[in-house]
Amino acid sequence: MTDTFVIVGGDAAGMSAASKAKRDDPDLEVVVFEKGQWVSYGACGLPYYVKGEIQSLEHLVSVTPEEFREERDIDLRTGHEVVAIDPDDRTVTVDHDGGETVQSYDHLLIATGAESVVPPIAGTDLEGVYTLGSMSDGKELREYVARARDGETLQQSDRGPACRYLEECTGPVGIVGGGYIGVEMAEALAANGFEVNLFQRGDRVLKGFSDATSDAVADHLREQDVAVHLGADVQELSGGDGIEGVVTDDERIDVKMVLLGTGVRPRTALAEDAGIELGATGAIETDAYRETSIPNVYAAGDCAESTHVVTGEPAYVPLALTANRHGRAVGQTVTVRPTEGGEIAGTAAVKAFDLEAARTGILDHGEAQAAGFDPVSETITAKSRAGYYPDGGTVTITLTADRETGRVLGVSLVSEFGEGAVHRSHAIVGALTEAATVFDLENYDLAYAPPFNTTWDPVLVAAKVLSGKLR
Amino acid sequence: MTDTFVIVGGDAAGMSAASKAKRDDPDLEVVVFEKGQWVSYGACGLPYYVKGEIQSLEHLVSVTPEEFREERDIDLRTGHEVVAIDPDDRTVTVDHDGGETVQSYDHLLIATGAESVVPPIAGTDLEGVYTLGSMSDGKELREYVARARDGETLQQSDRGPACRYLEECTGPVGIVGGGYIGVEMAEALAANGFEVNLFQRGDRVLKGFSDATSDAVADHLREQDVAVHLGADVQELSGGDGIEGVVTDDERIDVKMVLLGTGVRPRTALAEDAGIELGATGAIETDAYRETSIPNVYAAGDCAESTHVVTGEPAYVPLALTANRHGRAVGQTVTVRPTEGGEIAGTAAVKAFDLEAARTGILDHGEAQAAGFDPVSETITAKSRAGYYPDGGTVTITLTADRETGRVLGVSLVSEFGEGAVHRSHAIVGALTEAATVFDLENYDLAYAPPFNTTWDPVLVAAKVLSGKLR
Repeated sequence: MTDTFVIVGGDAAGMSAASKAKRDDPDLEVVVFEKGQWVSYGACGLPYYVKGEIQSLEHLVSVTPEEFREERDIDLRTGHEVVAIDPDDRTVTVDHDGGETVQSYDHLLIATGAESVVPPIAGTDLEGVYTLGSMSDGKELREYVARARDGETLQQSDRGPACRYLEECTGPVGIVGGGYIGVEMAEALAANGFEVNLFQRGDRVLKGFSDATSDAVADHLREQDVAVHLGADVQELSGGDGIEGVVTDDERIDVKMVLLGTGVRPRTALAEDAGIELGATGAIETDAYRETSIPNVYAAGDCAESTHVVTGEPAYVPLALTANRHGRAVGQTVTVRPTEGGEIAGTAAVKAFDLEAARTGILDHGEAQAAGFDPVSETITAKSRAGYYPDGGTVTITLTADRETGRVLGVSLVSEFGEGAVHRSHAIVGALTEAATVFDLENYDLAYAPPFNTTWDPVLVAAKVLSGKLR
Repeated sequence: MTDTFVIVGGDAAGMSAASKAKRDDPDLEVVVFEKGQWVSYGACGLPYYVKGEIQSLEHLVSVTPEEFREERDIDLRTGHEVVAIDPDDRTVTVDHDGGETVQSYDHLLIATGAESVVPPIAGTDLEGVYTLGSMSDGKELREYVARARDGETLQQSDRGPACRYLEECTGPVGIVGGGYIGVEMAEALAANGFEVNLFQRGDRVLKGFSDATSDAVADHLREQDVAVHLGADVQELSGGDGIEGVVTDDERIDVKMVLLGTGVRPRTALAEDAGIELGATGAIETDAYRETSIPNVYAAGDCAESTHVVTGEPAYVPLALTANRHGRAVGQTVTVRPTEGGEIAGTAAVKAFDLEAARTGILDHGEAQAAGFDPVSETITAKSRAGYYPDGGTVTITLTADRETGRVLGVSLVSEFGEGAVHRSHAIVGALTEAATVFDLENYDLAYAPPFNTTWDPVLVAAKVLSGKLR
């Protein structure tokens, strides 16, 4: 009899697993249940869709449901919600079309993803308050932007400080949260003429990055007429039917729309109800093969933990590459051979208007100390191309290493867009993953030519300066 | 008594050593003899100076002689040529101002660099035949370009095929050699309206790169109206007083100027005369600390060998970063502590009009086999940014690994300029240096965001495809 591989959730992890498993074992029956209508979509592209640089939501879909069904022979069922797992019977219960069916499995992958966190304050249910976790969120936001742009142009007297000098001003809006989504959406909304207020509870944006990166990005947001409110603890979203204002601990800002970019949490209810263990991070715990506490039940993607390559400890960093990588590994594990999907380094990249930034590894000294390291950091700013070359800007790099061993722990980089902060982070991911030291890194024979860098690439400059501090 | 550190040659290796030694031990007497007038210059920038993107030769100088003398307290003597080393007496003999003096040393660094190879054919001494190894070469070439551009515009009937459709055509020129210099100078000369003929003896340009990179660059050169003559063995440069034609084994092309870009060789005469051993590569042999066969005599930069990080064997790859790195290491060795400057990976980058390319490690299968590997290569072409993102192009990557172990041996990448082939090579330099496998590499947690790459960066795509071939 043919084995059945059942997958709950049809986005990155789920569809990567389905595709890989079916490719490696065409006889395997692969059934994917997706409660929504969209599968295999690039949620990371939503800000660019809202901005208007991508014309259709369909463009974010890498493979369509029809292609999965017809070309890849995957039994993909959209509009099907798995509501229960019975690990003893090896079945799942599925809600669809007003009824319920039971599907048995030999291997099960839980790829339920993450959901936007809505902060526990008043007013988050007001009309005009959005999140950006799903394709339908993206659709609604884009519709809002289109409506607002078609509306009347604000009178000069109605304009807030940030849009007072703009030729066109679509209205004041608020973004709560200064993480990736907050920063990317600031760009998307500003590009559409909105007066953007960004509220960040902590004292800097992009708190997973270095202080130097956060400061560079915040300064740049302000240059782009984004009002950056740091240390702004949002107490309430105020309004009548619709949103009218953001109330922080010390002021009230008028807004016509609010985007909540306050993070995500793993969707774990289904797994918990089945008795599957969660880890300390709150996401589903797995071994190196993404198998959960229940045999033959795997979890991958934004609902699951990973292991951090620097600390060796469980970590929850819900990002697209990990979902793809771990999903694919599970697809191979259930067909060909047990496959570890690899660890994570917490690597992330973001474009903020005309800047780009990346980070990887452990930068926070408290986190590094908790993992048994004695962290030392240095921040350098270096030219991104040969000084005499006509183009170019600067790259600012904060590099962190362990004092005792010199081991590279993490890095944060920021540069003008196109000046290579993001791709340069690739070198550090390699160093982290291979447990290299700054003494190794400063001797890396990195590519050099005047249009691309200085003789010592900024990454090497950072390594050289930090290594000098450790000797 | 104070020690004296004598350095022969005032470019990258020499001045890096001088600066580092003086910084680490201000009491050390540091004497640099440079036979020319220019020191510490970026020869890699010369093509951009000839092109006209850099306005003055002085812009290529990172630190001036005055700054070395006054700010760094280095006894820099330009116009001083060291003509002999006496290792027994620990002295060097120096020609200058028509006379000779003798200088004693405690530590000696030979940093005599490399010189352009002039092929052994007739006509290389004709007026209008240039090389591009030195600042004065660059000056002469730029003067030639300026004169030619000021001259009369060619009549339509005098134009060769490559410049027939250009609005402006400064005349037909020949470049002998399709390496970095040849390719960069093709861009520089074409930008000045010359009809460029590039003669390459072998069957592809940039022979240190992969076939895929060579083909992409040759195709692109042709798109830019450069006539690329492959398999063209230049027999003779013909002319009367000045150059008139390039004669290959099967044709004769009219040219008004020729640039020889046929490589460089290490300047070793001074070392050889002193009894210092050369390695199998023909460059000066050193240990890991750049010490030659004679104690207290070091050699670094374009005159010396390095050790290849993949093969562990001596290699001669004269490039700027190695010179800087090894010079600096010698400066530290003679003052603070013995310092290895690190191995090399043969990494190189080049811009060719609107393309960029990089290579690192061992790509040639014969070379890999000679080093005991069983090489396997895969070439992939992948999108450089998210498919739905408005900008972007493609990156073509040839990745080579050892069949048995999976160890990454080398890579060659090519993309549109700005699409990240060069900075992406940084990841592979890390992998090579750390002796990582493609199975490791495919799991690197590289940064991802739609403006910078696809979820699986092209580097990961290449690793995944090659790893699939090895399993």
